[in-house]
Amino acid sequence: MAEFVQASHMLRLDTRGKGFTEITADVSRWLQSIAGGEGLVTVFVCHTSASLTVQENADPNVRSDLMAALEKLAPEGDHYAHDEEGPDDMPSHIKAMLTDVSLSIPVMRGRMTLGTWQGVYLIEHRAAPHQRNVALSFIGRRA
Amino acid sequence: MAEFVQASHMLRLDTRGKGFTEITADVSRWLQSIAGGEGLVTVFVCHTSASLTVQENADPNVRSDLMAALEKLAPEGDHYAHDEEGPDDMPSHIKAMLTDVSLSIPVMRGRMTLGTWQGVYLIEHRAAPHQRNVALSFIGRRA
Amino acid sequence: MAEFVQASHMLRLDTRGKGFTEITADVSRWLQSIAGGEGLVTVFVCHTSASLTVQENADPNVRSDLMAALEKLAPEGDHYAHDEEGPDDMPSHIKAMLTDVSLSIPVMRGRMTLGTWQGVYLIEHRAAPHQRNVALSFIGRRA
Repeated sequence: MAEFVQASHMLRLDTRGKGFTEITADVSRWLQSIAGGEGLVTVFVCHTSASLTVQENADPNVRSDLMAALEKLAPEGDHYAHDEEGPDDMPSHIKAMLTDVSLSIPVMRGRMTLGTWQGVYLIEHRAAPHQRNVALSFIGRRA
Repeated sequence: MAEFVQASHMLRLDTRGKGFTEITADVSRWLQSIAGGEGLVTVFVCHTSASLTVQENADPNVRSDLMAALEKLAPEGDHYAHDEEGPDDMPSHIKAMLTDVSLSIPVMRGRMTLGTWQGVYLIEHRAAPHQRNVALSFIGRRA
Repeated sequence: MAEFVQASHMLRLDTRGKGFTEITADVSRWLQSIAGGEGLVTVFVCHTSASLTVQENADPNVRSDLMAALEKLAPEGDHYAHDEEGPDDMPSHIKAMLTDVSLSIPVMRGRMTLGTWQGVYLIEHRAAPHQRNVALSFIGRRA
């Protein structure tokens, strides 16, 4: 199995507070740099108040509607026992639990099998900007 | 490592509008066809208004209750900024975000390690029938 | 590829009814026992009324707030068609669908790439204690 490739990488991203940061191109570039051809790429966020999702990359209104939906599902309020880290902290953990901490995406012919309208996003749930670590892993065959 | 297997496949499925389509048998058949023995199978849906889940495969009422729960968590309404693709589109994106875009399931002795009552489902969130692509990936040892 | 490692293991856990059981150490110990060095570990829960999440391992109030949030998103009530297995059963399926059935975590230098405050948790959604199976899979290089 001379062509087997296993590689990992830690991506460091700066967020600007609540919102979506597209990381599709970061993952694609890394895949190319390691010559990942056929296999599986995994994206993992190393935090509990930021998370991941694969969502529409066309109309930006989709992301603002998604964010509004998350606000409704996990509103700020004085009903949380964990309130030492600010009013936006506990809702962030809930939003992270409801979305994704890890995403595994098949790779064919050197490319993630994303649909036309799919982008990979880091979601920052905290109000303030943060530096976030996202671990990447590839296992499969060389391109 | 002569027995290493890496394989990918694109499944094409027709949905009949909102509802669950069980794909457990499709994934199992593909695993057998590639002689996947010990390793990891990943299922990835290439869309943002359909998604995946592993859920009870016995009482069909479970699926109708799950669908009703998703409707409540992401109701249709005129409060979405993204409304050009019909009233069921933005709720579909929210439901997809709350459920799964990718599932990774360990494989032992040629079979997914699903519990007795677990089935793998594609969830169509749009009202109209759609053709959906689901990418499969296996990495591991030959059966 | 002499150093390739592929291994699987079934973890058996006893829960004490609704609540979080941390399994980070169980997964870490297993990784060490198989000399998993660089690659990907996957955790999969073989049930539809228990699930997984990666969440804060510091303040226990975070877990009670997360559990309260899940109760609100999937309350018990007489509005479910599936009610033969008790009032806590259908809400359990919904909570399982909203959280995770599988988690894939990159492994670097023999350790999961978890952030400082991240723990891997099994969430029991049923009121009564249960015995739960959690499948583990590793693919990658030897430590």
